[in-house]
Amino acid sequence: MSDNRPGKTARVTARKRRSDGERSRTAILHTAAQLATVEGINGLSISRLANAVGMSKSGLFAHFGSKEELQLATVEFASAVFSAEVTGPAAEAADGMPRLRSLVENFLHHVERGVFPGGCFFASTTAELDTQSGPVRDRVLEVENDFLARIDAAARQAQADGDIASSEDVEQLIFELHAFLLLANALFVLTQDSAPMERARRAIDRRLAVAPTPARP
Amino acid sequence: MSDNRPGKTARVTARKRRSDGERSRTAILHTAAQLATVEGINGLSISRLANAVGMSKSGLFAHFGSKEELQLATVEFASAVFSAEVTGPAAEAADGMPRLRSLVENFLHHVERGVFPGGCFFASTTAELDTQSGPVRDRVLEVENDFLARIDAAARQAQADGDIASSEDVEQLIFELHAFLLLANALFVLTQDSAPMERARRAIDRRLAVAPTPARP
Repeated sequence: MSDNRPGKTARVTARKRRSDGERSRTAILHTAAQLATVEGINGLSISRLANAVGMSKSGLFAHFGSKEELQLATVEFASAVFSAEVTGPAAEAADGMPRLRSLVENFLHHVERGVFPGGCFFASTTAELDTQSGPVRDRVLEVENDFLARIDAAARQAQADGDIASSEDVEQLIFELHAFLLLANALFVLTQDSAPMERARRAIDRRLAVAPTPARP
Repeated sequence: MSDNRPGKTARVTARKRRSDGERSRTAILHTAAQLATVEGINGLSISRLANAVGMSKSGLFAHFGSKEELQLATVEFASAVFSAEVTGPAAEAADGMPRLRSLVENFLHHVERGVFPGGCFFASTTAELDTQSGPVRDRVLEVENDFLARIDAAARQAQADGDIASSEDVEQLIFELHAFLLLANALFVLTQDSAPMERARRAIDRRLAVAPTPARP
């Protein structure tokens, strides 16, 4: 039996309206993040986005007060996607080598699945903003550095566990793993072919297989 | 005794004028290539460049008929710089391992010397144009592929010479070297610090030291 009390109806309507607004904001930011990986985040103006999502500029101004606010909201959206796709699932894995493996594999997988048409959102925007300054660049680098810090922490735990040789320079190891991820992303976007992903996986496997401490006597 | 024949004076004047024109074109393209690595090659319009070099738009139109012509001329200029800095000197080295070493070291060195403020011109423009199409992207990729083809040829010669193990997958090796170069470039531009260059050199040394065939019995 349906509940026709006006109070509840009003609450449901309010909830529905809020939910529509949120869905719409999410949909707008999804388009914004995709555009940013193709046309650049500097090209992400309110009028360019209005055109892409078929909304009025004034409608978008109601969501985001300025181009910079829109860019920052887009970075936050991409950061949430990156958490959901890459770092979140890796945090479920056991600390140490399993988490290290999960972080790098989830990264490759999210690029390969085409979550964004221009590959990793953060690799794309970092390359664009590298010589620039401002809050958008700062926030992009924060998210990227958080990812690298997680790789670093997992690798240090793996080293403490004896899964990476104690003689290994962890920063050097991470530079090399990071390099494989970056090139795989760049070549995948260029070619839309999985071959560079396989090259990166082989390089990572070999590098981590070189790393372990030999079994103690 | 000076030669005052009018014929020669006219030729000298013509030569001087042509040389000024060329110098000016070179200076314009130098600024254009630097801008392209900072603001992006898509941002390289005739009016943006006119502003940067202090020339009239019509003056620049006399040099380059369109934005695309300007972009293509800029890519050719950057390609000539890349030849002079990286591939040309490497071609002087002996084929095989010495040339392979020279190609990767010259690459790192030209980034470190700040030949362009945004690092490697081709890494920068490839990252920008990766999801786009057209003659500018095609030409950028041609220059990049030429560089990789030279690394490939030198590595195959090194393998034929026994300096790289016959069991080694040369394409895999080149993927890994390329990855170190790309990340070193990206991090150097971000941080203006030489530490990533040293990381790349160590990674390359280690990778090439792993590669050699053990001395035959």
